[in-house]
Order: sequence, then structure tokens, then C-alpha cells
Amino acid sequence: MIAVLKPSATDEQKNHLISWLKSQSLDVHVSQGENYTVLGLIGDTGIIDVDLLESLEMVESVKRVSEPFKQVNRKFHPEDTVVEIGGKVKIGGGNFVLIAGPCSVESRGQVAQIAREVSAAGADVLRGGAFKPRTSPYDFQGLKADGIELLLEAKKETGMPIISEIMNANHLPLFDDVDIIQIGARNMQNFELLKEVGKTDKPILLKRGLANTLKELLMSAEYIMSEGNRNVILCERGIRTFETATRNTLDLSAVPMLREMTHLPVVIDPSHATGIARLVEPMAMAAAASGADGIMVEVHNDPIHALCDGAQSLTPSQFEKVASKVRLIREVALQ
Amino acid sequence: MIAVLKPSATDEQKNHLISWLKSQSLDVHVSQGENYTVLGLIGDTGIIDVDLLESLEMVESVKRVSEPFKQVNRKFHPEDTVVEIGGKVKIGGGNFVLIAGPCSVESRGQVAQIAREVSAAGADVLRGGAFKPRTSPYDFQGLKADGIELLLEAKKETGMPIISEIMNANHLPLFDDVDIIQIGARNMQNFELLKEVGKTDKPILLKRGLANTLKELLMSAEYIMSEGNRNVILCERGIRTFETATRNTLDLSAVPMLREMTHLPVVIDPSHATGIARLVEPMAMAAAASGADGIMVEVHNDPIHALCDGAQSLTPSQFEKVASKVRLIREVALQ
Amino acid sequence: MIAVLKPSATDEQKNHLISWLKSQSLDVHVSQGENYTVLGLIGDTGIIDVDLLESLEMVESVKRVSEPFKQVNRKFHPEDTVVEIGGKVKIGGGNFVLIAGPCSVESRGQVAQIAREVSAAGADVLRGGAFKPRTSPYDFQGLKADGIELLLEAKKETGMPIISEIMNANHLPLFDDVDIIQIGARNMQNFELLKEVGKTDKPILLKRGLANTLKELLMSAEYIMSEGNRNVILCERGIRTFETATRNTLDLSAVPMLREMTHLPVVIDPSHATGIARLVEPMAMAAAASGADGIMVEVHNDPIHALCDGAQSLTPSQFEKVASKVRLIREVALQ
Amino acid sequence: MIAVLKPSATDEQKNHLISWLKSQSLDVHVSQGENYTVLGLIGDTGIIDVDLLESLEMVESVKRVSEPFKQVNRKFHPEDTVVEIGGKVKIGGGNFVLIAGPCSVESRGQVAQIAREVSAAGADVLRGGAFKPRTSPYDFQGLKADGIELLLEAKKETGMPIISEIMNANHLPLFDDVDIIQIGARNMQNFELLKEVGKTDKPILLKRGLANTLKELLMSAEYIMSEGNRNVILCERGIRTFETATRNTLDLSAVPMLREMTHLPVVIDPSHATGIARLVEPMAMAAAASGADGIMVEVHNDPIHALCDGAQSLTPSQFEKVASKVRLIREVALQ
Repeated sequence: MIAVLKPSATDEQKNHLISWLKSQSLDVHVSQGENYTVLGLIGDTGIIDVDLLESLEMVESVKRVSEPFKQVNRKFHPEDTVVEIGGKVKIGGGNFVLIAGPCSVESRGQVAQIAREVSAAGADVLRGGAFKPRTSPYDFQGLKADGIELLLEAKKETGMPIISEIMNANHLPLFDDVDIIQIGARNMQNFELLKEVGKTDKPILLKRGLANTLKELLMSAEYIMSEGNRNVILCERGIRTFETATRNTLDLSAVPMLREMTHLPVVIDPSHATGIARLVEPMAMAAAASGADGIMVEVHNDPIHALCDGAQSLTPSQFEKVASKVRLIREVALQ
Repeated sequence: MIAVLKPSATDEQKNHLISWLKSQSLDVHVSQGENYTVLGLIGDTGIIDVDLLESLEMVESVKRVSEPFKQVNRKFHPEDTVVEIGGKVKIGGGNFVLIAGPCSVESRGQVAQIAREVSAAGADVLRGGAFKPRTSPYDFQGLKADGIELLLEAKKETGMPIISEIMNANHLPLFDDVDIIQIGARNMQNFELLKEVGKTDKPILLKRGLANTLKELLMSAEYIMSEGNRNVILCERGIRTFETATRNTLDLSAVPMLREMTHLPVVIDPSHATGIARLVEPMAMAAAASGADGIMVEVHNDPIHALCDGAQSLTPSQFEKVASKVRLIREVALQ
Repeated sequence: MIAVLKPSATDEQKNHLISWLKSQSLDVHVSQGENYTVLGLIGDTGIIDVDLLESLEMVESVKRVSEPFKQVNRKFHPEDTVVEIGGKVKIGGGNFVLIAGPCSVESRGQVAQIAREVSAAGADVLRGGAFKPRTSPYDFQGLKADGIELLLEAKKETGMPIISEIMNANHLPLFDDVDIIQIGARNMQNFELLKEVGKTDKPILLKRGLANTLKELLMSAEYIMSEGNRNVILCERGIRTFETATRNTLDLSAVPMLREMTHLPVVIDPSHATGIARLVEPMAMAAAASGADGIMVEVHNDPIHALCDGAQSLTPSQFEKVASKVRLIREVALQ
Repeated sequence: MIAVLKPSATDEQKNHLISWLKSQSLDVHVSQGENYTVLGLIGDTGIIDVDLLESLEMVESVKRVSEPFKQVNRKFHPEDTVVEIGGKVKIGGGNFVLIAGPCSVESRGQVAQIAREVSAAGADVLRGGAFKPRTSPYDFQGLKADGIELLLEAKKETGMPIISEIMNANHLPLFDDVDIIQIGARNMQNFELLKEVGKTDKPILLKRGLANTLKELLMSAEYIMSEGNRNVILCERGIRTFETATRNTLDLSAVPMLREMTHLPVVIDPSHATGIARLVEPMAMAAAASGADGIMVEVHNDPIHALCDGAQSLTPSQFEKVASKVRLIREVALQ
């Protein structure tokens, strides 16, 4: 950690600070410039509160040299993490995964049909929302336990592993046979929930919050890993910006950036990021080109009685086209 | 609800859509312009998914006319809500409240001393964090149940009502004698937690999320009220923007804007918004001038053994000065 | 245009407003709902100030049905615009262009060498900054007229068309033989400059401002086209968000979104968007996959005496690899 | 300047870098930590390109210790700058200024009447737009030279100094008798224009760009000052965020923050920041409470034939009330 002291700092102040820092078991290297004094702090600087130090009258600025994330950090774990899903699918380390399915589980028929169709179209994992986080308390909140049940039936029939979102740690027993537990964007910093899923050994797909930095995403992954669960998959699903043409702004540079910072696999969700079905194909292809380890898209079978497709959902035949293009792109990207 | 159809929509498409809408028990008023056809939908439009309708090929845009929030809406409840706190303090409807105390509860001595000092300086409510949401799993997570205990002791000694943050609905029994339960910014859309505190009758201080709109803040308040708890206090604590000079950007125009939209009281937290103790005084004054119903500030007694003040905490004597200026400003604002 | 009136609007107010609107030569269709009254305004609504109308006490909200952009609008010009560059290169309508070269023109030797190398590696157009917009007045502001001169020499030698940024309409005569004039992000809403380049018939590459919406980008293109110049190329180069891991956030969904909104070609600049040379390859590939009509990248030959590569510049051999991958991706994207 | 080298840097790389830095006439202090090597660079570090240095494979991060702004910096000029306006009004150093007038100059009668009314209500300076930056080329662009003429007549009649926006340096001669030249938000980084107004000795009111940091605002002020003009007034007018309830988000913490960073006076424009007339009073009061040196508001006399007030304009009598409250707040703030 480096602290830069202001030109106005008196010798007394400096000595006071330096002895306090030493009393915290830190080595202090002093580097005296023309105007500024720079302190290099060596040792376990994790105990120092950066904001507090920075607030000292005499301190110009403070900078941590080492990242606050450890277990997720590629520096300490150079090889890609490969997460095994349901005993048959792998993601990361060169293994690419297509996740597809309806936004919400609505009925047995719906899930079963979509499951068969996306499986035939090349999807590796079936997604489906049973517990739905909705901005309004008056909106449909999902089929809950019944929804999980229907997903499990579809898993049994098709053999596809399934992923579904959890919103409450008390529901964990319902997810016993769910293959990937999803933590939604709004719960990315629900630290209590992160700790609980960290105590399981299930693969966890952690979505980036709407206004969270990549560092914060990694710190939330660190919460899960610090409890012992190493099966974490990251998911970029659009961030909140001033632009209103798309629902959110898909931050694809997060893919190569995260690849440098962490060994965990990264999945892109173009459906939620853009909120527009017509943009899913180009953005799924762009995601594959950027080096993502997987793509998660919404697929709907009979959108409002054939009246329209869901705002952000593809039909199974559209998905099939996307899936094949994505795999071609990926071949080029890997060259 | 209004739906604008594209010039390219055929008569067949229009008729198909209109009969579907009518089958949903809606009245449809058709208004034919030179290029566009406008449908006015009357009835219970809550059942219509705007995104879905907007995604129809023939639809240019859809607009809800009525707000999705009901119980928090000033239109349906014109009088200010007054929330009673601990039987002695009121907020809203002209009642102004000063909340002060340490960021984290650290020890019995610390809480007791600060409680006495902020009480003497004019604070109405004592704040103190027992459960601390921290970005890093390795940072101090608060004294938890013991911290609540120490706050309750300080309440007993000084007679001040207390406020503390909850992070997990399973902890609710610990908050039985806490006067205001705080929902932190990161949990503003933890809908499961909102529903649980909505089942109590305790005053809830709901902080705006870092990247949440005022409408979303009100929808989260609606979650609490829809479960029966009418004692909701809103809190603006800075939003995330591109500016890095301050930790967040305090959005003070939220105060008069929320006053129009809702009857609920609004509190400003300048300490977390700016992250800089030196900015707390001017921003607390500005908050009072903007018409806020209360201000919540961090006060620390013995910042790092007198070495510095916390990055965003005032000393009790600084707080006393802020408190008296804020009350003077408020007198002018009310004229 | 649609205006929704509040439930509280009196008949007298409504009649007053309606007769005023009619006096502005508009037809007014009234649609009466249970709570709200909706006015459909037909005619030349361009003369109505939306903000002003919305500010009326009785008005709930106002919505323009038609887009404010005309000449750039794909609705009125369904075919892709193809811009011819220097008589030999085309962009748009299926024609893809690679633009490469140094951030700043530094010397005759530098430009000449990079020009030869990027030409050999497959670049279609040579970029080079002669007038440099710099945040600080003390930073290098470019070689100015001399820089343009060196670019023209490189053009003569290699036969490549050239692109360079203009910052002042008074410099236009210097750009007589420059093939594409670039308007930088900071000048996207320098309307005086837009009008002046609109009076020429040169291809104009218009960069999106750091905090400008796609609509605003199109309105700025409309400024150029409304003066008679139809040769406009749009360029996405990253927007400003809260994320600091990359310099800006590349908004790739802008590519398919702009394709729907406008007939103008769209170029992506991954170098400025990310500010990190290592991210240029994956982001250039993603841009091609998303359907961009061109990519503009920074290439440097002898970065600080071989000490390092520029923060966002590729070496010619890195560029060659990017160029070949981008062309492969493009083949898949076009399938 | 401080450069942190990665643990992976070899001794050869380090020595190579250090000798290159020394060849740039810098002193290099090496501080060796357990993992990281920290270089303290002393001397004229202005010549080093931070981005470039940071892009070196061996470099973890680079940090400038000193701010890049000099003449605007309070460190080098501790006393408040007082700008004299038209020989009779002062701003800064305890002098507070109210600026009021119409958004656009529309007619002789309009300007003359508003000028008399705002003067009577306590305004110190008359504002009025003659050259109007409009997002659409089809919107009213102002009366231009005629508008300036009408403002000058109003100045003559009332004796009030006037302020108006410039959009093109070629128009400077028209501003000979204008007392303050305004640089609008969209031109904050139009460096060519900044340099030209920097060559005059007129007071310049520089508005913060919609997505510009405080540092960038100061760097633009530095452009003006570096050309010799010391009469710079800064203006915060709202920044672009995700929130859509208000047109922009007024960043009032900019006031105390800028006061620390610079000696230049700071004015707040609540009309443009919020875009809503009803919010002007509370935000003007909040601005005064935060310590602003002045407030600029829009006042309109006969809004759409008495039908409504402009979206963001006060009537003269509303302005009078705001003016008196603002002065009362200011008295408290100065205590």
C-alpha cells in the first residue's frame, strides 16, 4: 500500500503517522520527493481502512497495490477453472456452454416442449425462472416450488442439466437437484445469500449487478469461494447507463478483462442485457467472438398465443440459427 | 395505457391485436393519425406486459399512463405520512429528525459516549451498524447480535430511539426493540427481505440503491406497504455516476421530486453519499434547504486514537455545529 | 404527438388547451379514459415544444410518436448508404473497411513506415491525428498543418485514402485532400462545426460523444445531412459509465440498434473505447460479429524505443493478426 | 509520480525501465516490497504519458501525485478569485450573484420587460440566449446577432450587466459589449473555442459538460487561464446519469469539492439541471446552502400566452420569492 503525504504535512505529523503505522505491524519505507513524501507500506495491509487513512488531513492519497480479491484472482491461480455441471457438461478452460430456456416457467407443457426443442437445437443446459424478482409486488412472482418441480421433470425427460435463480437462502433445500444455482443481478451484493450458497458445493452462476464494477463482481465471487465453494461462474448481463435505446448496456469488454483478472468462467446473457429479441443474435455472436465461455439466452415456444414473441425471447428455430452461428464464430475466435 | 402502431401495420394485424386486447377485458379506443394509429387501452392494464406488447413487430411504442405504484402514491394519499418512532419522535408532515451515531458499533464505551454526545448536540435518533454489508468477505462484518445489544443499552441509558441495518430476515427477532429497521442500498431490491419487514409494523428506513431510479425506490417501498406496513421512510444516500471526486453523487433533487410522487418522509445521508467528512456540513445544510424531512450523519468519538477522523464521520462537536445550522436553514425553508 | 391530461384537469382547462393546440394548426383527437384524457395531435407537431407542453399543470406526460431525425432515418431511406472514400474504397451496404494508423502523426518516417505496414497487413484507410484534442493545455496538441502534410505524403506513396480529425472549421482548407474528415467525440455536439462540414461533400466520420445517446448521435448526423452532405459514417468509441477497469465502455449493441434506426454505415473504434491494447483483438472481433461496417484501430511502429507498446496501440504484426481474424468472423456473420 | 512494478518484473526489465526514466531527466527512488517494487519519480513528470507507462507489461499501475491543473489550483493560489462584471458587480470571495432572464431572447418587448422585472426582484445580471445550441437542426437556433442587440438595449435601459452564450469563435466581435461570455456544456471541451476566449479579458462562465468530471472542468478552465484570461467562473448545471425523473442530476457536492480544488467562483444553474420549474426554488435554496457563489435561473414573462410556464422557467414573481429565500439561506450558510 502506498500513501502520499501532502507538502503541508509537518515532520511531527509524519512521525506520528509513521509510528502509528509501525504499531500496526507494517514496515514503512519513506521516499522523500521535492514536494511530496511517499510512504510504502509493507506487510498485512488488509487491516488498514483506505478511506480512513485517506481522510487524514496530511494525506494526499492512498493506493492499494495488491487486489483485495484472492481466491478468484488469476495471479494466485493461473489455470482456468473448469466447472462441472450435472456430471456431463463442463464450462471454462476451453469448454463452451449454451444455456437456453424460458424466462419464467409457466406450465408443464411449456417447459417440456421448450426443453426438447432447445436440446435438439444444441443447448447444453436448460434455464427457467421459478422464483422471479420483479420490480413490482403486483407482478407475477413465478410458480416458485412448483416451477422447480416442472424443471426437474424436464431434466428427467431430456437429460439436460438445469439452472434456476434463488432469492432466499431458506429455499436452498428446493434446489437440491438443480444443477446450477443462479444469483440474480439484484442480489449480487446480498452477502448473506452469497455466504449460504458458498457453503454448498453446487455450481453458482453469479450475475453482475446493474451498477457494479468488475472488481465488485469478483469480490462477490470471493464471498462464495471464501466459504469453500469453488464452482463459481460469472455472468455479464448489461449495466445501467444513460442510454435508453437498449434496456441495459452490454459490457462485452468485461469478457477479456475478467479473463485477465480471474480464472473463473464467464457467461454472457444478451437477452436481459438488451431486452430486445432482435439484438440477441448479433450480441450472442459478438459475445462468442470476445471469448466468452458460454451464452445464456431466453427461448419461448408459443409467445402470447402466436401474437408476438416475448420482448427478449427467441423462438426455438431462431435459437437454432443463433446456436450454429455462435459455434462457428467460436471456432474462429479460438484459432 | 397507450400503444402506438407503426405506419406499416396492416389492417389485419391491427384487428388481430385489437381483438386480443379486448379478450383481455380491456376497452380499446382507436385514434387514426396520418401515419400512426394510436390505441388507448382502458381498464385493468396491469395484466399487460409492456415489454411484450412493445416487442410486437407492428408496435412502435407503448406507454403506461398511470404509475405502477399505488399505496406509496401521493395521488391516492395526498396527506404527508407521519411515522412515529419509539413513541416519542415523529418524522414527516413537518416533523424533522436528526439521526446520528457511529458507522459501526465497536464497543460499549464507544456507543455509550457517542449516544450521550449526539443526544446533547440535538440528535433525535441514534444510529449504529451491528450487521455491516462489506464488499470484501475479509473486512470487519460488525459485532452482529452483540452490537444490537450495545445499542439497546445506549437506548436505555439515553432514552433515544435507535436505528440499525438488517441484512437477513432470519435476524428479525434480534430487532424487536430496535425502533427503526434500516434496509441498506444493496438490499433495496432484495424483495424477499422487503416482504418480511413489510409483515412487521416497525418503521423501516429504505435506502435508495446505488443505481436505482426514484420509481424503483417507490416500487420497493410498495413491496413493504403491500404487506401491511405503512411506516416507511425513504433515504437518498448518493447514486453511482462517472464522477470520482466524491464516493457517490448526492441526488438532492430527489427530495422535491419524491415529495410530489409520494407521501412518505425523505431522509438524506450526506456521509455515505460523499464519503468525505468535510462535505457533510454543506450537504446537510443543502439537504435541509431542499426540504428533506431528516438527515442521518455519521459521528465518531475517538477517530483512530485521535490520529484522524473517519473518512466520512464528524466529531460530536462538528455534529453540534451542523445540527444548529441545519435547524436554522430549515426555518428559512419552511417560510 | 400524444398528450395525456391528469385526472385533475378541469373541462375549462382542457378546452383552453385544445383550442390553443388547434390555433397551432393541429388536429386534436380526444380519447376519454376512466381517469385520464388522451389527446392525439396530428399535423406538423415539430413546432410544439415538448418540455413546455409537459410543464403544464394539467398535463401528465407528452410523447412524440415520430422520431425527430429525418434524413438519417432508415424509415424514409430503407437502403443502406454506401459512402465512397477516395474513389477506391467503399463502406456500407456490405462493404467492410479496416482503418489503421498511429494515434498521432509524429514524424515523416513514422507515418510512412506505419502506412506501408498497415497497408500490407490489409488496412483500407490510413488514420493519423494531426490536430489532437487534449484534456490538458500543456499536453502535445499535434503537428497540426505539418501533420496533415505528412499524411498526404503517405497517401501519395501508398495510395491509401486517409482520415484525420478536424477541430476548427477555419482549418477546412487544410483538409482538401484528406479523404475522410473525422469529428471527434468531444465535438459531436459542436453544431457550428457540424454545419460547416455539412457544406462540403467529403465523407465525415462522426464519433459518438462520451455521454450521448444513439438518438443524439443521429441528430448530429442530421445536422451534417441537413446542410447537404450525405456522406456520413457513424463511429461508436465507448461511452462513459461507472466502470473504471476499461477507459470507457464499448457499447456494441449500438451496432444492430443503429442498423435499425439509420441507413448510415457504422464503424467501431476498440482502441479508444477500451484504452488497452490487449483488448483490441477480442473487441475488434466482437465488433465484426455484431455486424459493424468497419473497424478503426491504432497501430504504432516503434513504441517508446521498443520499451513498450502504447497503451492502446497494436504493433503492425498484431494488427495483421487482428485483420485476418476480423475478416474470418465477418464471413460467418454474413452467412 | 509513482509506478508500481509487478512481482513478475525481472531485474533486467526493471533496470531497463529505470535507465530510460533517468534518461528523461527524472530522479528515480526505488522502494522494494515483498512482492512489488515501487518507483517514485521526481522531477518534471509532465513529459511522461501515464497511459503509455501503465501499458508496459511489467507495470502494475501508475499514479500521478500532483494534479495536472496549475493556474486554477487553489494550492498555488489560496485566495478566492473575485471576478468583476461590468464594473459594478463582483462574484467570488464572499460576493454572491443572482443571474436571471429568459432562456432565449425572443423580442425587444420580452427582453425589456423581463429585464426590468428581474432587476426589481433583485437579480444582478441579465441572462439571455441569442445563439442557441439545439439537438435538432430543425429547432429554433436563436435570434443570433439580433438577439445580442436586444440584450444590449436592455442592458442600456436597466444598467444590468448581461451574459450570453457563444458557440463560434468567429462571433467574438459581436460580444464586445457583453459582460460575461458563456461557454455551454456541449462546448466545455471545444478546446479551440476555449483558447480563443482565453485570449480576451472578459469574464467567462464555463459550464460543466454533461459527462465531465470536476477535474476535466478544471482542465478546461486551465485552457482559458493558460491563454491569459484569469476571469473564469465555473458553472454546475447537472450531469447525465441513469435517473430520468429529472432532466439531469444536479451535483451539488461539486460546490464544496470545487471550493477545495480551485479558487474560482462557482455558480449553480438549477433550471437546466432539473428541467422542471417546480424544482428551481428548492434547488436554488440548496445551492445557496451548499456555498455556491451565485445562481443562474430562467425567468419568463408571458409563458405561451399565459397558458403555462415554460418547463424550467419561473415567472418574475416566483423568481422574486426565490431570490429573497436564497439570500436568507446564504446568511445562515455564512455564519
